[in-house]
Amino acid sequence: MLTLLDLAGVFVFAVSGALTASRKELDLVGFAFIATVTGLGGGTLRDLLLDLGPVFWVHKPHYLLVTTIAAVLVFFTAHRVEVRYRLLMWADALGLALFCVVGARIARDAGAPFPVAVLMGMTSAVVGGLLRDIICNELPLVLRRELYWTPALLGAVVAIGLDGLGLPPAVGGLFGFAAAFALRAAALLFDLALPAYKPRPGRAWGREVPASALRATGGRPQTP
Amino acid sequence: MLTLLDLAGVFVFAVSGALTASRKELDLVGFAFIATVTGLGGGTLRDLLLDLGPVFWVHKPHYLLVTTIAAVLVFFTAHRVEVRYRLLMWADALGLALFCVVGARIARDAGAPFPVAVLMGMTSAVVGGLLRDIICNELPLVLRRELYWTPALLGAVVAIGLDGLGLPPAVGGLFGFAAAFALRAAALLFDLALPAYKPRPGRAWGREVPASALRATGGRPQTP
Amino acid sequence: MLTLLDLAGVFVFAVSGALTASRKELDLVGFAFIATVTGLGGGTLRDLLLDLGPVFWVHKPHYLLVTTIAAVLVFFTAHRVEVRYRLLMWADALGLALFCVVGARIARDAGAPFPVAVLMGMTSAVVGGLLRDIICNELPLVLRRELYWTPALLGAVVAIGLDGLGLPPAVGGLFGFAAAFALRAAALLFDLALPAYKPRPGRAWGREVPASALRATGGRPQTP
Repeated sequence: MLTLLDLAGVFVFAVSGALTASRKELDLVGFAFIATVTGLGGGTLRDLLLDLGPVFWVHKPHYLLVTTIAAVLVFFTAHRVEVRYRLLMWADALGLALFCVVGARIARDAGAPFPVAVLMGMTSAVVGGLLRDIICNELPLVLRRELYWTPALLGAVVAIGLDGLGLPPAVGGLFGFAAAFALRAAALLFDLALPAYKPRPGRAWGREVPASALRATGGRPQTP
Repeated sequence: MLTLLDLAGVFVFAVSGALTASRKELDLVGFAFIATVTGLGGGTLRDLLLDLGPVFWVHKPHYLLVTTIAAVLVFFTAHRVEVRYRLLMWADALGLALFCVVGARIARDAGAPFPVAVLMGMTSAVVGGLLRDIICNELPLVLRRELYWTPALLGAVVAIGLDGLGLPPAVGGLFGFAAAFALRAAALLFDLALPAYKPRPGRAWGREVPASALRATGGRPQTP
Repeated sequence: MLTLLDLAGVFVFAVSGALTASRKELDLVGFAFIATVTGLGGGTLRDLLLDLGPVFWVHKPHYLLVTTIAAVLVFFTAHRVEVRYRLLMWADALGLALFCVVGARIARDAGAPFPVAVLMGMTSAVVGGLLRDIICNELPLVLRRELYWTPALLGAVVAIGLDGLGLPPAVGGLFGFAAAFALRAAALLFDLALPAYKPRPGRAWGREVPASALRATGGRPQTP
């Protein structure tokens, strides 16, 4: 079950990676490399940090098969999709919701305490997409205003929280996934966001700045 | 003692991470994630490279507590600070000076030879801030003109050099920290820099370029 | 033999790193750090993923010596080179061809299945340069149009393919290296490229766009 979820997460993240490769107009080998890094990056870092031996895909080449299939699929069909950027967002959201659950559980099984397991869930969920954006020179999704880390945090907490109450794994998995996906979906659909840090107008940088000047620069005084 | 220094280094680096998050106007969860990556990134890479088992914070969740506290603190107080960018620089400088000593010593204890231990000190000191800048899409501090790597190098050399002479750890630690911090502080205050590489005017790119043209582009001919 | 090739690969990649540092006008310590990251980055990630214990250079400080020598050499001579950017490309190409063979073989020796070993060859060959470009804030070479991943893929496949046929290591190594280098050289000399993904004009983004408008933006409609 965990394996199946994991494969599904790898696939959708690989799709998101290949879609980013399509924005950069890479060739097929580039598609496959970016898809692989995006699909496997988060889990790989998790395994490295937990010291789980060779990372999970080293002796399971079918993971590479999955990411390569995703890359080929996107390479030959993406031009038919009318809203590739939206698709990228949704593939990323699915991967996020799947991996925060899987990652947190693997960490828990490896003996990590609760807060560390939550961070590992977030790491699994966020790092693949982060590497995708950094390698492809895109503005990292994690810097966008709508909720991104919080859904991953929520999904991880719900999943291993319910596990901790002794409920069957299917329950924790389902609720964790649903919570993370619902929150991220709401963020995408309604631009949902936590209150972001905002330098207080007039206090920022220790001098009075007229509100109008602030508005022109998006609430931020010009000087670094 | 090493643990206390380590925690202090994690805290100040986490503060620098949270300050960068404030420049990006992230939400509280984003603050916590960036603070954690900045505070723990350098030591994490060090532990991975030395193969020290699960990285140091996996079974010590209080490290996450420290980075989260730093994030919350900065989130709710940074707008009161008049010179946040300067504060970021100084928090980063403190972290640098603490981690180059701690990192080099941990590597030495793990049996690494002298030059490798020095590099591990530099890695611990530099990588957290580097990840912070890359994830937040800021120009990496390491590319700035004033001394950055050299203080880390100096601190590591002094600390494990004095240790090697058989002096008590407090001596090496104190002098290593002081040397690194003093040099970095001098760099910040007086724009201190080693001679940087400069393409020789008139020789560069194999053709004569008038000195005036070079000056206009900061000493660099226009073409790549 | 493997060690010698490895050292040669480290040296040329270190040179490419130092050349990038020269474009950024860093100081000597910065040169050494970037040269080291570029020279050792790919093999380091390979060793981490395969869980081969402390990474290869931790107990072999002569690797650091090699990268430092490369840095010093470039620092004091690069201004005499008339075509530093071209040199960077060729040093990178040499490193790529050497590391795809070495990396794939080390993975094979560690028991990785064929496709994973190929990916490890590509990782060794590509990651050092990728880190160099990301740290130095340059457009990653991997995003350029001419063949970059494919030569690494080819070299790895040829080398461990011939090894698998029972031929002596020198044969597989030579042919793998030659194949990768020839293909990358051809890419550099003739702008050789695989067909890149191109959004189909008129279908892209689900609306008719006049071909002329597409041409003006390099075949891409303006909106994200």
